[in-house]
Amino acid sequence: MGEERSTGLQTLGKVGVVGLGLIGGSLALDLRQQGVPVTGLVHRDSTATRAMQRGLVDEVSCHPSCLNDCNTVILALPIEALLKPDPQLVEALPANAVVTDVGSVKGAVLEVWRHRHPRFVAAHPMAGTDQSGVDSGHHGLFQGRPWVATPEPSTDPQALARVKVLAEGLGSEWITADAACHDQAVALVSHLPVMVSAALLRAAGDERDPRVQDLARRLASSGFADTTRVGGGNPALGTAMACRNTSALLKALAAYRWSLEQLEEAILSGHWAQLENELQKISALRPGFVEKGPGALSPPG
Amino acid sequence: MGEERSTGLQTLGKVGVVGLGLIGGSLALDLRQQGVPVTGLVHRDSTATRAMQRGLVDEVSCHPSCLNDCNTVILALPIEALLKPDPQLVEALPANAVVTDVGSVKGAVLEVWRHRHPRFVAAHPMAGTDQSGVDSGHHGLFQGRPWVATPEPSTDPQALARVKVLAEGLGSEWITADAACHDQAVALVSHLPVMVSAALLRAAGDERDPRVQDLARRLASSGFADTTRVGGGNPALGTAMACRNTSALLKALAAYRWSLEQLEEAILSGHWAQLENELQKISALRPGFVEKGPGALSPPG
Repeated sequence: MGEERSTGLQTLGKVGVVGLGLIGGSLALDLRQQGVPVTGLVHRDSTATRAMQRGLVDEVSCHPSCLNDCNTVILALPIEALLKPDPQLVEALPANAVVTDVGSVKGAVLEVWRHRHPRFVAAHPMAGTDQSGVDSGHHGLFQGRPWVATPEPSTDPQALARVKVLAEGLGSEWITADAACHDQAVALVSHLPVMVSAALLRAAGDERDPRVQDLARRLASSGFADTTRVGGGNPALGTAMACRNTSALLKALAAYRWSLEQLEEAILSGHWAQLENELQKISALRPGFVEKGPGALSPPG
Repeated sequence: MGEERSTGLQTLGKVGVVGLGLIGGSLALDLRQQGVPVTGLVHRDSTATRAMQRGLVDEVSCHPSCLNDCNTVILALPIEALLKPDPQLVEALPANAVVTDVGSVKGAVLEVWRHRHPRFVAAHPMAGTDQSGVDSGHHGLFQGRPWVATPEPSTDPQALARVKVLAEGLGSEWITADAACHDQAVALVSHLPVMVSAALLRAAGDERDPRVQDLARRLASSGFADTTRVGGGNPALGTAMACRNTSALLKALAAYRWSLEQLEEAILSGHWAQLENELQKISALRPGFVEKGPGALSPPG
């Protein structure tokens, strides 16, 4: 570990990573591999011990003062911790450091952080698996994935440039967007699917005729499995997204309801040609969302 | 091809397969491999030629009279052709042959067929891919998949037993159910997911802000891809299912709407503990639908 290569990542200086779960641990591993010195800040002694054992970081501490000499700080915290930051953490952030986050909603993060640090850059590296904890971080998590920053007019352009170096240095595709646009887009493609999918699972599970219920369970196949995968995911995460991106999600849900009603209307009225035409147009939409260029954005799993 | 092994399949006698698409072609291939003589009935000369080239059948014809000496006839036709059968086909079915079908809705099929042939057995082998046509049939399609028969009090028990031999001989799991139960179960786990998934794709595609639309397309990842897969499938098939299983699908859609409203209500009211509890219960439902015993029901793709 630690042999320096000439990537722009050296301009990050010493990096503090706050939280060493899936995102923080993976960031730390990739940075160290490229010769960037990394200090980790965690809550528990046991996490600190394990982080050193795994070689995630050069140094680790449970005291925010460990960030004092960091040039760049990445807040790799769960959204709730990010939105109610520990005052000692905020206090410990060096005023001239660049501070960025990894939260999946950006409006709420900016509301809390834009006045808490002068060089804060709101960002969202879109990578993840269903794993978590100090043992889940791994190399290459950000490779080919989008890393969205949502700068405001008041955002320090040099701080933004440094986060771009970080994202691109780890192989991500750099995207900048308005925070409200980001939040609406992730509501549509990430948070709405969770609710849509969960409601399907519940509708099937709520079937009261035991013969139908039993048969449905036996006959459910790959189509049902795929459509219900995200709805059967982490309940706390689904709730946090809904709680922190409420208005965008409600807007997406309203659009969804309208869209489902159109299909239901056609079925109820027996307008089969219209239904087929509708499904045809819908199926033509899919490649625009799911077929990406070579090497880009395709998740491993 | 054709060396006889001692499987119960010999009791089928000579088998006529009507339609040599994915299902019919796969049935024919598996039967021939086990030494059962198979005659194919198709519409077009070019299909007949190709079926012989591929070795799907022993004999093939475009004339229903080829079924005259068959002991078992499998109607492997698209649902629309099954529900408006060619009178010449019905005429050509030997009165003492066992006749079965492969349609994915059973109530509508029984309405048409229960008075058209004295030894008709309504059945639904639940296997398939998104391929079709005379080149799509392949060995082992039915292995480990459910094969549901929906007998009525008037169904000939010996005919039913022979279809069971067929299903089990090709490696399927034999299930019998009431036709209405079958149709409601497939509405829940197969037809409803298509509409739920299509509506999601449309809601995302309908986003009018071009910045959000563009960003949504770039950020859509595996969760969105999985949840929209069946909604982006064959529009004609989705329409045929809706058209032929209308009341069961409308009932499933009503249950779905109610279930989505519960989640939306919790979000709108900010009842986060309730939402998390709901998502927790929902995620606990999923294994009952998607985790099958070893070797059973798991589709290849």
